[in-house]
Amino acid sequence: MALADTRRTYHEQLDDLRRDVVRLAGMATESIARGTRVLLDADLTGVDTVIAEDARIDELTHAIEEHTYELLATQQPMASDLRVLVSTLRNIHEIERIGDLMVNIAKGARRLYPRQLAPQVRGILERMGDQAGAQLRVAADAFVDSDPAKAAALDDMDDVMDDLQKDLFRAIFSSGAADEGEVQRAVQTSLIGRYYERIADHAVNFGERVRFMVTGEIPGLRSDAEPDGGAAQ
Amino acid sequence: MALADTRRTYHEQLDDLRRDVVRLAGMATESIARGTRVLLDADLTGVDTVIAEDARIDELTHAIEEHTYELLATQQPMASDLRVLVSTLRNIHEIERIGDLMVNIAKGARRLYPRQLAPQVRGILERMGDQAGAQLRVAADAFVDSDPAKAAALDDMDDVMDDLQKDLFRAIFSSGAADEGEVQRAVQTSLIGRYYERIADHAVNFGERVRFMVTGEIPGLRSDAEPDGGAAQ
Repeated sequence: MALADTRRTYHEQLDDLRRDVVRLAGMATESIARGTRVLLDADLTGVDTVIAEDARIDELTHAIEEHTYELLATQQPMASDLRVLVSTLRNIHEIERIGDLMVNIAKGARRLYPRQLAPQVRGILERMGDQAGAQLRVAADAFVDSDPAKAAALDDMDDVMDDLQKDLFRAIFSSGAADEGEVQRAVQTSLIGRYYERIADHAVNFGERVRFMVTGEIPGLRSDAEPDGGAAQ
Repeated sequence: MALADTRRTYHEQLDDLRRDVVRLAGMATESIARGTRVLLDADLTGVDTVIAEDARIDELTHAIEEHTYELLATQQPMASDLRVLVSTLRNIHEIERIGDLMVNIAKGARRLYPRQLAPQVRGILERMGDQAGAQLRVAADAFVDSDPAKAAALDDMDDVMDDLQKDLFRAIFSSGAADEGEVQRAVQTSLIGRYYERIADHAVNFGERVRFMVTGEIPGLRSDAEPDGGAAQ
């Protein structure tokens, strides 16, 4: 086989890898939408679907990781190709965690059942689900287009999510709690809010890795710890 | 420079990298101990120390990451060296997240102030801090010794942490909550429990990557989602 063909095959493989990452992000986006419906509608039949989707996300993550190691080991990639591969390893990990967190949210819905979400709390959680999904889509778009400017929009989007989390805590606390069941509901709803906030963080990390992939600038001095005044302030 | 010298320098660099990862894990272990004291003693002067330590952890993480990319790009490592390098990228990320979570815990202590932890809750949180520190130490030891058997012990250790989290939720809920302040305390304490549980998970992931580093077997089909019956059950 001529050298040019070999190289083409290698770059085809890189393209396959990128397409798989986009597919993985799509699966996680769907899981956010489905898991949020489970939560809002207390539709417990959907819990197992979210869990099954997470298993498929894990499997594809595993396959992409293996493929990436294979390319790292056999192709000796340099510079920008190397950055695509190491970014892939990080990004699939971010997406895989989103799948896990949606499982936590779906299970949280099961724990809340049959208690109803207070209308104000329900409205905020719906917006958190929308926001989380939107952030992941922006990160995936930035990845597809290798567009660091698009990825940079995620920081502002994440401020929206942080505000939603504060609104959620305020709504939870303002309702008071008379008995053990109410305390459980408050705690469970707070944890669910925290899971959404983490999902959005994973989308931000994904976006930062897109910037690294394109520019070579390593993120990492930004703290992922919650901002001051975050939870339960 | 002779080829042998070049190779020696490369392996010295790999050794430096491993030492830096161990140092990073040591910093995170100290942060767990210090942040847990802050929480248990409501010693708010320590909060800023935990935040400052996290910044140092972030800086070292960043430096190790840069060094790893440099070695990946310039040394074209194969097989086991490649596994050391890609494992390093993942492991420093796990450790860095532990630093973030300890910041969350220290800030949680500030939010709880001046409310006292109930004695039973305080006792469980102390054990969670000890358990998290112990798991990170085992993961770091397994890494130092390239010992997959040691890393495998982390799965059983993590069951202890999951049980502690269940105990914590039970203790929180059994106390009931009469007013908004009590609900806030219940939520804040539950979130802190969740942070400890995540720290322990990061130690488990670290251990899995040690196993991968030594054996080449990719982890990733295990779900990091919380077990059934986990939070608030």
